[in-house]
Amino acid sequence: MPASASLAPPPAARERILEAALACFARSGFHGASMQAICAEAGMSPGALYRYFRSKEAIIAAIAEGERERHAAFFERLAEAEDPVETLASIGIDLLEAALHGPFGALGAEIMAEAIRNPDIRRVIERNQAEARASLVATLARGQARGVIDPSLDVDAACRLMLALADGLCAHQALDPDFSPARLRPALRALLRRFFRPEAR
Amino acid sequence: MPASASLAPPPAARERILEAALACFARSGFHGASMQAICAEAGMSPGALYRYFRSKEAIIAAIAEGERERHAAFFERLAEAEDPVETLASIGIDLLEAALHGPFGALGAEIMAEAIRNPDIRRVIERNQAEARASLVATLARGQARGVIDPSLDVDAACRLMLALADGLCAHQALDPDFSPARLRPALRALLRRFFRPEAR
Repeated sequence: MPASASLAPPPAARERILEAALACFARSGFHGASMQAICAEAGMSPGALYRYFRSKEAIIAAIAEGERERHAAFFERLAEAEDPVETLASIGIDLLEAALHGPFGALGAEIMAEAIRNPDIRRVIERNQAEARASLVATLARGQARGVIDPSLDVDAACRLMLALADGLCAHQALDPDFSPARLRPALRALLRRFFRPEAR
Repeated sequence: MPASASLAPPPAARERILEAALACFARSGFHGASMQAICAEAGMSPGALYRYFRSKEAIIAAIAEGERERHAAFFERLAEAEDPVETLASIGIDLLEAALHGPFGALGAEIMAEAIRNPDIRRVIERNQAEARASLVATLARGQARGVIDPSLDVDAACRLMLALADGLCAHQALDPDFSPARLRPALRALLRRFFRPEAR
């Protein structure tokens, strides 16, 4: 079983472990999934797996790092947008909907709960959140300067509300089988436009 | 230490255990806190504690049930309000701010993560969420009938956005030491008014 693992190029093996870990976490939760179960899911020996990740925490940190990169790409695109409100209301909602359907939705609450306790995970999550906030705040402030965002809004507070809403939606989606992200789109779009647009519109 | 426990009237002992459990969960997380640690914190023997709660799950369920009762009282008050938008923007934000400062903020992400895996906790949380949604949706629909809420809003979707925002804020507050709930008040109030009010206002 582990024969091919040592032959696989490092990035592929690494990806295979992360995918196996996501499947195990989704099934048993972060505390319930053992490194052994992750090895079995990835079809790797413990020795091969430990070459890439020394602990479950290291795997969670790598998953969070992958999320950070995906978010950074989105925030960069948002920063370049002519009208950040419309970009949030289209690409932002697309990205959120993809997250709600993917494995990260269910894992989000778990990673946050772990981050509250575990300093190693916390550092990764705090850095992710701080980066996301800095980028979104700068974008919103530029939108104010251009007149497409209400100048009276506290952009730091507005940014925190939007990031909390996104994470809250991920947790609720994982909890509620009747939750339809598509159904939320028009309401979410209305919320973004009404909240951010200058009063006289 | 446990001498007085058997003399205390049941509700007081029960409350003492729940308070001790909250302190232990806040310190070590749901998985890290042992029943033994909860006994020690409550100053009770395991025998005395097990008379009230047979497991940590039962304690978590009781904590969630207490939350449900507090929320039900708020939603009842909201249902009686002349203008639900203004009541959300005042009492709703007060309640949220109290939750953000209290022990439930940090525990919220943990309880949600647990509910995603654990069917016993999930049942309690699902019932809480379903009750909160039903009450809030009915209130918003009445607000539409009275003309104080935009009739074009999908109140079910709007309600889900608001509950996700509240839970997301609780998780973020627990994660971020710089998070000031008071700073969010004006932005949150603006969000509620702009989102819910009829367009021509």
